[in-house]
Amino acid sequence: MRYVSFLKDGKQYLGVREGQAIRVIGQASLEDLLSRGVDLATYGRDHASAETVSTAAITYLPPLARPPKIICVGLNYADHTRESKYEQPDYPTIFLRVQTSLIAHEAPLVRPHASDSLDFEGEIAVVLAKGGRHISKQDALACVAGYALFNDGSVREYQFKSPQWTVGKNFDGTGAFGPDLVTADELPPGAKGLLLQTRLNGEVVQSASTDDMVFDVATLISILSEAMTLEAGDVIVTGTPSGIGWARTPKLMMKAGDLCEVTVEGLGTLRNPVVDETTA
Amino acid sequence: MRYVSFLKDGKQYLGVREGQAIRVIGQASLEDLLSRGVDLATYGRDHASAETVSTAAITYLPPLARPPKIICVGLNYADHTRESKYEQPDYPTIFLRVQTSLIAHEAPLVRPHASDSLDFEGEIAVVLAKGGRHISKQDALACVAGYALFNDGSVREYQFKSPQWTVGKNFDGTGAFGPDLVTADELPPGAKGLLLQTRLNGEVVQSASTDDMVFDVATLISILSEAMTLEAGDVIVTGTPSGIGWARTPKLMMKAGDLCEVTVEGLGTLRNPVVDETTA
Repeated sequence: MRYVSFLKDGKQYLGVREGQAIRVIGQASLEDLLSRGVDLATYGRDHASAETVSTAAITYLPPLARPPKIICVGLNYADHTRESKYEQPDYPTIFLRVQTSLIAHEAPLVRPHASDSLDFEGEIAVVLAKGGRHISKQDALACVAGYALFNDGSVREYQFKSPQWTVGKNFDGTGAFGPDLVTADELPPGAKGLLLQTRLNGEVVQSASTDDMVFDVATLISILSEAMTLEAGDVIVTGTPSGIGWARTPKLMMKAGDLCEVTVEGLGTLRNPVVDETTA
Repeated sequence: MRYVSFLKDGKQYLGVREGQAIRVIGQASLEDLLSRGVDLATYGRDHASAETVSTAAITYLPPLARPPKIICVGLNYADHTRESKYEQPDYPTIFLRVQTSLIAHEAPLVRPHASDSLDFEGEIAVVLAKGGRHISKQDALACVAGYALFNDGSVREYQFKSPQWTVGKNFDGTGAFGPDLVTADELPPGAKGLLLQTRLNGEVVQSASTDDMVFDVATLISILSEAMTLEAGDVIVTGTPSGIGWARTPKLMMKAGDLCEVTVEGLGTLRNPVVDETTA
């Protein structure tokens, strides 16, 4: 099933996608359903109402606006590691995002006052249905509720102002997430073998297979759980392939008026216009 | 006032400290009160009940168990930057913690299966009463609800397995926080001029003045808010001075049976025994 979180009359709703329409489930959040152990593969079918709304009539929200953790993986495609001038680490490179950085499908990516170095990073996000500690690689995919698209918008100058990337990865309006949470049963195990593409103003700027991840979804879940208890609703953003604007000559930074899209087979397209902070 | 979050009969309570007793406010959390805009400088006086409990009879909880953000500052004391073999960055070095890493006063710091390189880092944590974006340095301290002690327990081998420190800073049972949230009116502005000491098994291993922070509390709030919206309940952990075990010859790592204490004038003492993961 494909879940959509959206605003209607100022309230947060959850629905399931049916073509260009959303069948309304009601006022609910995926965070809450997942924390209660609901099985999303069947919940939408059993709880959808008779009411539908057009996707043109709603304001999207991120699938989860307040996940307990937003764990991001850097340097997880070898060609991106090379263009970033890093040696490929033999352990996942992990940073975190805060909830305030998240935006929804169709919401503006915000180029901040502070810097004109806003860059795109098309990625796949994994949402956990259950967590735990010391999860084996073979048990890991059973923890996945589903997948969504993510644009890990990065303010490069701030990413590299100190040894830790955190600030450059956490500006308001830079973490685009959505449009749908697609349950795991609709995709290949671990979202393997899918074509991931990022387009800026219609031009393909990143294109790779999810098979090229250095650490695949099951491995990431297993390794992270060696250190920390994973929880239902946690999001793991799995890293971007090569093609980022910062590594190009000349650099290709996003600016007001641009349109950035991330597409993965089976997950749809995450589309965000770019605005300057003053006009946001 | 000095707020204490604690467990009694399996339920979460909030109280205010009165010497060796806690005057009970009721089933409440500081996250919730702060998100509702409550003024903690007076709330405890106005809402405390007639009931008191002995501190010996309670199980402490972190002052906030689920803060919206846990923003940590690295390399914020010049002598610690030197012992860590970094050049002092002219911008704060920021990493994040997840909620699952937090533990309370008197709870065990957990040395994980994965590594014996568990290190101490005594610090002061700032808890925000209100947030916002683009907060000026002169308005910053008006956003502070209060201060608490923090032991930013670090699994050094994992901190340095990749270019980002995140995993080494987020093992379960490594982020000790408490015992009290002391409201800002009880301390000097910005918690300046306070003696911060860490003791391991009674021996002083870190000792510095909070005046030695490279970026003081007001500056941190202001700089962080250039990038992200700060929110009521957010926690900023302000960095550790020199003396960490990893920089010593031979290294001084924490092990089961150790007792680690962080003391700051006016904030009390945060005390945590160390256990191995198997015995936690």
